[in-house]
Amino acid sequence: MKFPTVKVDVEGLKNFVSEVFVRLGVAEDDARIIADVLVAADQRGIMSHGVARLGRYVDGIRRGIMIPDAQPEIIRETPTALLVDGNGGMGQVVSFKVMREVIRRAKDMGVAYAVVRNSNHYGIAGYYAMMALEEDLIGISATNSAPIVVPTFGRDMLFGTNPIAVAVPTGGEMPWVLDMATSVVPRGKLEVYARQGEKIPLGWATDERGIPTDDPARVLDNIKNRRGGGILPLGGAGELLGGHKGFGLGILVDIITGVLSLGSFGRYVYGKPDQPPGVCHFFAAVDPAALVPIDQFKSAMDDLISQIKSTPLAEGAEKIWIHGEKEFLRQKAQSEKVEIEKVVIDRLRKIGEELGVPFQLG
Amino acid sequence: MKFPTVKVDVEGLKNFVSEVFVRLGVAEDDARIIADVLVAADQRGIMSHGVARLGRYVDGIRRGIMIPDAQPEIIRETPTALLVDGNGGMGQVVSFKVMREVIRRAKDMGVAYAVVRNSNHYGIAGYYAMMALEEDLIGISATNSAPIVVPTFGRDMLFGTNPIAVAVPTGGEMPWVLDMATSVVPRGKLEVYARQGEKIPLGWATDERGIPTDDPARVLDNIKNRRGGGILPLGGAGELLGGHKGFGLGILVDIITGVLSLGSFGRYVYGKPDQPPGVCHFFAAVDPAALVPIDQFKSAMDDLISQIKSTPLAEGAEKIWIHGEKEFLRQKAQSEKVEIEKVVIDRLRKIGEELGVPFQLG
Repeated sequence: MKFPTVKVDVEGLKNFVSEVFVRLGVAEDDARIIADVLVAADQRGIMSHGVARLGRYVDGIRRGIMIPDAQPEIIRETPTALLVDGNGGMGQVVSFKVMREVIRRAKDMGVAYAVVRNSNHYGIAGYYAMMALEEDLIGISATNSAPIVVPTFGRDMLFGTNPIAVAVPTGGEMPWVLDMATSVVPRGKLEVYARQGEKIPLGWATDERGIPTDDPARVLDNIKNRRGGGILPLGGAGELLGGHKGFGLGILVDIITGVLSLGSFGRYVYGKPDQPPGVCHFFAAVDPAALVPIDQFKSAMDDLISQIKSTPLAEGAEKIWIHGEKEFLRQKAQSEKVEIEKVVIDRLRKIGEELGVPFQLG
Repeated sequence: MKFPTVKVDVEGLKNFVSEVFVRLGVAEDDARIIADVLVAADQRGIMSHGVARLGRYVDGIRRGIMIPDAQPEIIRETPTALLVDGNGGMGQVVSFKVMREVIRRAKDMGVAYAVVRNSNHYGIAGYYAMMALEEDLIGISATNSAPIVVPTFGRDMLFGTNPIAVAVPTGGEMPWVLDMATSVVPRGKLEVYARQGEKIPLGWATDERGIPTDDPARVLDNIKNRRGGGILPLGGAGELLGGHKGFGLGILVDIITGVLSLGSFGRYVYGKPDQPPGVCHFFAAVDPAALVPIDQFKSAMDDLISQIKSTPLAEGAEKIWIHGEKEFLRQKAQSEKVEIEKVVIDRLRKIGEELGVPFQLG
């Protein structure tokens, strides 16, 4: 399942994306942050969260849903915790700045966390979790999002794909990075299947009656028009395969983001058309060195990873992947040139033309 | 799927269990803790983790795997974190004491956590998470366990059912309590199906080749004899339904318990016959009041719960359950008398006879 792509110069692409945001009123440094988060997603092969989304951000700013020059505001702080109001600004900007602050505090206090309310889509959760790795900390990031997931035994969409990411330093080349939607799949997966005209596996989504369906176009249309049904939590429909666990994890993310910040949660995220979505985030960092020598911690991580890698394969399987390994290898291979879908290139070019920012493949 | 039960007096049962542990060398106060954790599991309807396990603990002490009078030792501590060595003692005892300490620190610091190494099976994860509720804190608990779960695309067992529990205070009658194995099911579910001679759904476990199977007896026998195969992570086999996410959550628990404490993790937990299992735990508490007024936090939780409850039902569904609701209702109904399986009663009676502790149904 792959669409036609072209290779694009990474620096050129970041410059273009950054310039687009500057034209829309985002400060130069902030625009660089957004560009870095978006292009990193493409480099890591998570193209649903990369520059393919640029149009949605442009649209968000134009419609007043995203405030390009909003200043995040610290509502309350302690040595270990921060409550920040994003004031409707760009999700990447507040997230980057808050995670940097969480890291600083975790270095001092051993552990620290922050909640952000009134923000917007922040891109890949893993980006912020991985920021902690530079300081040899464990990084954690989570966000709530538009309600497109149904609760176990429920018919209507109630909460988002609510991803959680955790990044853990290792002694080896690659960190361990879990970056997962708490739904069985993100919406982008359904879109890919719909574009291909393919059926989805039963267990990904339900129809307007709340019954599992294999028709992705129908699900996407129902989601758009709020007709009922939606994406299923990790574990699928009902309780037999653990759907109530994925449901619990999704709600947990709403609790540590929207509830803990007294912001938006559940159906209130993107609750009304043309109302600011009020997306909420959670960030945390833990310093293993507060309790154990960091080198021994990293050696133990390497040991765990080598236990995984040395596990005999199931019949017919090719490889056991370490979490973050696929993305790490992709990012390494795409450090200078990154694959972008042709249809996305066309969209970028159009955005560039509208804003007077020349787009070059480089 | 229910086996014949009898109703037993809760206080009498706790006294019996406690007395059994005292006879085996556990201090009176510590024995009371273990009894309370075990009977609470039965009261909450999690009978796989209740007094049905008493025989395993008795056996563990007799074989020297569990040290009845071990003193937990603080290896390192900071205002926000604790590293504790369980010295091979009873999991419930060290866990109860450490969680109490974590709660105290979280009240002071806003957030605190602890890791415990060289411990033993600690019962239901939710018990310790729920301890935080009395202080209006969010409680978190996780533990690694015997490796009976296979990694995605792997043939052999690598890590445990590694449960995570999170308890969140609410303004309403019931707290929100997620208490879940990160595997699709715990081992106990397979045992119930095997006893009934029923097939298990494909997606719960794999056979000795690493292929999904519906034969629970075969899986249990393979697990016992380490022939390959085992229980699947949440999300099932392969990546199609998100099995790699459950795999990631299971490994995450091994990281925050065994790796972070420099204790046992992965295959090392119960690595060798007659070697202490070296089970490791994680505990944390977060004080919402550090950032927001606790009453507003609780009201927001109530709002989220009412959003869930007011979601229209899927066709054919009867009810959307809040996490912890089934267990709360069961515990409330069983506050004085608790249902215990007849076969378990027989086993308790036998243990009592061996140790000279009279067992009365009460």
